[in-house]
Amino acid sequence: MKCRHQFGGTRIKKQYGFYYLSLIISTRKIEHFSGCFLWLVTKNFKQISTYFILKKRMKKYILIILICIYAQQISSQHKLSEKFNLMPWPKEISENNQKLIISQNFTIGVPDVKNQRIFKATTNFLRRLSGRTGIFIDNGFAVNNSEKAQHSLVLKYEKIGKLALHEDESYQLTINNSQITINAATDIGAIRGLETVLQLTNNTKENYYFEGVNIKDSPRFPWRGLMIDVARHFQPVDVIKRNLDAMASVKMNVFHWHLTDDQGFRVQINSRPKLHELASDGDYYTQNQIKEVVAYAADLGIRVVPEFDVPGHASSWLTAYPEVGSKDTIYSVERFAGIFDPTLDPTNDKTYELLDAVFSEVAPLFPDQYFHIGGDENEGKHWDENKGIQAFKKKHKLETNHDLQNYFNLKVQKILTKNGKIMMGWDEILQPTLPKDVVIHSWRGKEAMVEAAKQGYKTVLSKGFYIDLLESVVGHYNNDPIDNATNLSKEELKNILGGEATMWSELVTPLTIDSRIWPRTAAIAERLWSESSVNDVDNMLKRLDVLNYRLEELGITHVRNRDVILRNITNNQNIESLKLLTNLSEPLKGYTRNQGGKEYKSFSPFTLFADACVVDAVDAIRFNRAVKEYLGDSSKENKEILIGFFNRWIDNNTEFQKLKPNPKLNALYPLSEKLSELASILKNAIVTDSFELKSFNQSKKILITLQKPTVDTELAVIVAIEKLLVNFEKLYIKE
Amino acid sequence: MKCRHQFGGTRIKKQYGFYYLSLIISTRKIEHFSGCFLWLVTKNFKQISTYFILKKRMKKYILIILICIYAQQISSQHKLSEKFNLMPWPKEISENNQKLIISQNFTIGVPDVKNQRIFKATTNFLRRLSGRTGIFIDNGFAVNNSEKAQHSLVLKYEKIGKLALHEDESYQLTINNSQITINAATDIGAIRGLETVLQLTNNTKENYYFEGVNIKDSPRFPWRGLMIDVARHFQPVDVIKRNLDAMASVKMNVFHWHLTDDQGFRVQINSRPKLHELASDGDYYTQNQIKEVVAYAADLGIRVVPEFDVPGHASSWLTAYPEVGSKDTIYSVERFAGIFDPTLDPTNDKTYELLDAVFSEVAPLFPDQYFHIGGDENEGKHWDENKGIQAFKKKHKLETNHDLQNYFNLKVQKILTKNGKIMMGWDEILQPTLPKDVVIHSWRGKEAMVEAAKQGYKTVLSKGFYIDLLESVVGHYNNDPIDNATNLSKEELKNILGGEATMWSELVTPLTIDSRIWPRTAAIAERLWSESSVNDVDNMLKRLDVLNYRLEELGITHVRNRDVILRNITNNQNIESLKLLTNLSEPLKGYTRNQGGKEYKSFSPFTLFADACVVDAVDAIRFNRAVKEYLGDSSKENKEILIGFFNRWIDNNTEFQKLKPNPKLNALYPLSEKLSELASILKNAIVTDSFELKSFNQSKKILITLQKPTVDTELAVIVAIEKLLVNFEKLYIKE
Repeated sequence: MKCRHQFGGTRIKKQYGFYYLSLIISTRKIEHFSGCFLWLVTKNFKQISTYFILKKRMKKYILIILICIYAQQISSQHKLSEKFNLMPWPKEISENNQKLIISQNFTIGVPDVKNQRIFKATTNFLRRLSGRTGIFIDNGFAVNNSEKAQHSLVLKYEKIGKLALHEDESYQLTINNSQITINAATDIGAIRGLETVLQLTNNTKENYYFEGVNIKDSPRFPWRGLMIDVARHFQPVDVIKRNLDAMASVKMNVFHWHLTDDQGFRVQINSRPKLHELASDGDYYTQNQIKEVVAYAADLGIRVVPEFDVPGHASSWLTAYPEVGSKDTIYSVERFAGIFDPTLDPTNDKTYELLDAVFSEVAPLFPDQYFHIGGDENEGKHWDENKGIQAFKKKHKLETNHDLQNYFNLKVQKILTKNGKIMMGWDEILQPTLPKDVVIHSWRGKEAMVEAAKQGYKTVLSKGFYIDLLESVVGHYNNDPIDNATNLSKEELKNILGGEATMWSELVTPLTIDSRIWPRTAAIAERLWSESSVNDVDNMLKRLDVLNYRLEELGITHVRNRDVILRNITNNQNIESLKLLTNLSEPLKGYTRNQGGKEYKSFSPFTLFADACVVDAVDAIRFNRAVKEYLGDSSKENKEILIGFFNRWIDNNTEFQKLKPNPKLNALYPLSEKLSELASILKNAIVTDSFELKSFNQSKKILITLQKPTVDTELAVIVAIEKLLVNFEKLYIKE
Repeated sequence: MKCRHQFGGTRIKKQYGFYYLSLIISTRKIEHFSGCFLWLVTKNFKQISTYFILKKRMKKYILIILICIYAQQISSQHKLSEKFNLMPWPKEISENNQKLIISQNFTIGVPDVKNQRIFKATTNFLRRLSGRTGIFIDNGFAVNNSEKAQHSLVLKYEKIGKLALHEDESYQLTINNSQITINAATDIGAIRGLETVLQLTNNTKENYYFEGVNIKDSPRFPWRGLMIDVARHFQPVDVIKRNLDAMASVKMNVFHWHLTDDQGFRVQINSRPKLHELASDGDYYTQNQIKEVVAYAADLGIRVVPEFDVPGHASSWLTAYPEVGSKDTIYSVERFAGIFDPTLDPTNDKTYELLDAVFSEVAPLFPDQYFHIGGDENEGKHWDENKGIQAFKKKHKLETNHDLQNYFNLKVQKILTKNGKIMMGWDEILQPTLPKDVVIHSWRGKEAMVEAAKQGYKTVLSKGFYIDLLESVVGHYNNDPIDNATNLSKEELKNILGGEATMWSELVTPLTIDSRIWPRTAAIAERLWSESSVNDVDNMLKRLDVLNYRLEELGITHVRNRDVILRNITNNQNIESLKLLTNLSEPLKGYTRNQGGKEYKSFSPFTLFADACVVDAVDAIRFNRAVKEYLGDSSKENKEILIGFFNRWIDNNTEFQKLKPNPKLNALYPLSEKLSELASILKNAIVTDSFELKSFNQSKKILITLQKPTVDTELAVIVAIEKLLVNFEKLYIKE
């Protein structure tokens, strides 16, 4: 087990090194300097130096000047990101030391209040502003700009944005003492700017105000997505809507809707009603609901890309239409998680009839140009077992199952083309005979992404953005789709469209899904929107803390629902002692939650201790930091901080023991007790400045117990405690 | 200001007195005794005694026997309601000292899993059971009953229930060591029984189980409703759905949907699209959403009665169609709360054309037989001002505006009849020329209800069930539609169909509405389902506490969202000190929240301190009880309890002062400080057994400050503190 939560103090230094590097290769940053000479010189520094024979001294001076200007930019940027909790961090920002005080007279002027996207975004802006400040704003709605009226916020855009790849989302924002102005090429850019404004609210004791800034902002990648799997656990419309709101608040623009899988077919299909009738347990979206969600997303400037997973992950298709399966068997909707064998028969014309019927029916529901066919994890077991399919392969000279799947993909692709759609699929579909507009969605490794880009395919990265694995946000944040190791030409790099966080739903329900998506997805949103140089983890974590809380405003339930689960576990007793345990524990990572003979089904309870725990457990992070500080400097102050932790753990156990027991609490007593025991020993060592071998051994023994998972969670302070013990051993025992 | 939270210890005695009385007049209770003689004698005791000349002694014996049997019943009922947290309390219940242990092998057998109402109810039952117990139940769905299989829960019903007034909702439930059986006449009765079963879960340290009981249950009134006003503040579909779930959990069966008012027209009308386009700010239900909600309610055995309020409350109608207004003016959607003048013109044929178009279009969306036309609060100002209307009145010999409205109602009623609907309206519509099937909805007083019932109209009571007034649950619980004062014949009594809690939404948003509806509506649900003899307030409060927490399971956000508001007020600081203040304060009652020149509009912030406070503030109730105990017995123990309260208030102020200030907190400092000051003085009095005049005067002065509302809330401990002071004065000063 590795401690994932150590954020080095050396980050800044590394960063400056990287800035230097990026300075050399960067071109765009320099375009802001007006001097043509400098621009020429730096356009490509190394090449230029061979074209002009510059004196050594001159080269050095230019470099120094550039470094100075650049360093100042970086330094002020860094200073500002300490001050402003913007996320994603904008491309260019400067402060102007002004502020716009928010009063009840606050008004918004727009080009056209009848533009629904703008009407909704500005109305929503005003409600959120009023809600968070408590100010009774007199005008509840934006009005049309006019020469006469001096609005507090003036929003302008040139045209109505299309929901299409590469649409312009840039905006310019100025806030000064008297006015906020947002200028954008499209209304989508304008609403991105509104979100930035809301993130700039601040307050004194007496007033709320917007921070005075000048911002020029645009995204680094055009595809910044969140995938939600509604097959493993169905997620009702309101869950989707609130997550769309949250996506928009961090400027994400693609909602990838994973609508079918072994565990369910979640769309009403009128031409093939058996699909939703027999393969959904009644949990599906009506076509009207789909339209409702797509329209809701459109108002937020979010594209909706549907996924109908074929030819594998097909138990639900085959529950309804077993005749197009590769095996003559009785199919049923899957209740467990995993990879299953049911696969569409690619040699059967009826398969394509079914797909044609379904895709042609749903295509108009999803106006986006892209259509995801899955295509992943087909292990071809049923193909291998089927003599007819084997014969077909031989006849058509399809050597491998991959070849056969490619045959299938090409036929599906034609159905999609007929319906005006561009095909997208997981990286297994990559095959050079596919048309070059197909999008490859990389989930197994960046290699697939790079390979696809090289072959001229557009590609989207999800490897490293698998939020369902319940890994720390730090790894996701550092997962840059294009980093120094990406060996691609400029043209090839353009094929890398961006990335998608993937929320597979085997282990989440509407009660818990928000806490698995947020706040980590906001860090991914920043990775995909902001420049690669915005990569200071500590600073990101500071800003993420604020964003995390602001998500509540949008209805995200990740904070509030944890308490709901704790009240359920305690049977409505005081939850504080249990809460402390959840703040030190994290749900088991990866797909390791099925332990001790227990295997989660889709209808198993997800109201358990593990469901109340979250990644990056807040008290664990604090404790781990405190240990690090203490190990660096065992000052009285640092000792006191550690003793404070230990006292809380000891007292907490006393409170925990007072709870009236019930079966859900039983497994947690050892955790509480052992933690308290260990805390006593460690506290004693610090207080007495001594540590006997007996205590050391006892601690080790307790630690072994605490290292074991407790009801699908792991204690996130183990590594830090181990380090403490090593330190005590060195200090008091080995001497 | 009166203290509303004193629950007398004399309740039981009063109750027995009432039982005696009800024994004399009751007929149905006695039907359970098999002795024909007793039945005859008591069928109508007073009459019988004149038919048969019985010896005085015999009459006395019979009476004594009856009282004994009855008292025993009552006593065991009372004992069981201390033990089981059922709400509403069932008609007949006995315990059998058995229990059914809940294991992973739990199964449900039903007559037909394809009955959607039963499929959904049983699936929902299993998820909730699994969620609250953490048990991994192997079978996630009910299966069809069969001779062979021995299911844990066997559910039977004779027919599929209709969603109509007077449909049979009765059920019989037995739980013993080996099985749960539910037998009902209809599937609606069966799902009522399922809710009862879930309320009977209990646990030891090792197991969850269902309590062993025998229950025969049926409702006292056939109309047990909740009205939600979605006009003043729009409530999205998910808000409605979760409240329908909660309604079903307390066996309510009518959702009255107040869909139009001055502040908005909330339904898509295809034949008159201006209504939703111009008069909703974009916040309306599509017809598909209406169908979705109606279907959702139907699965829960809940009827949906729509209300389209006419001819008053019509600003939204007239914003779209000013030509049918009574005044030639520009109408607009209203932003404030209140009674407004815009009124449909009852003399204009176009008015009826519009209503015919709208009602004919929406009638099929609402399959229920009843259709509510509002009809309330038409003060006729615009009628009086309109010469044409005055002339019309003269011509048609309509003397008063009430006559004119009745003319209007009769025409509307014909439109509804044409569409197969029975008209319902607020009590202003009562007029003897209306057809006798019209339902009168009494809101101004019980008199209207009684008068309507006397005239042969069916009637529903809402007076006393206005939950938006933010009065204590106690008053609502005691508001029996038929009490001893109801002077009606048996036939007339049948016209009293039941009641409806009314959630007018001027001061609630989706964030807060649940905390205004629940838990008080559950007590109203019990008033309407259970016998009138079930009226022990303390016992109800105990059961309500448990139900309150269980509502979280259904997604009701009344508990969790309070913390969301507190985090918003503190700007994400520690909310505990603020929370204590909310637990002592209650939002201003009635419609008094608009204070100090501030007037709430529909888009004003409802994220304030008052929105985090709830009726029957929990710590206030506890403190008030403690004061009462102390005044009755100033034992050391009772003193300690009070001192505990005072210490918490003192410490709390210390914590509160640590919060980083912001404008939303400013108004709360005096509350925290003054409360702490007063607590110090009162604590000192108790600790020192002395109270100087100076302290008394100082306390009085502080109390005057604390009596004033703080940001739309009132401190709910004032009366108790006043009593304490009177006591101290008597003890230490006047002596």
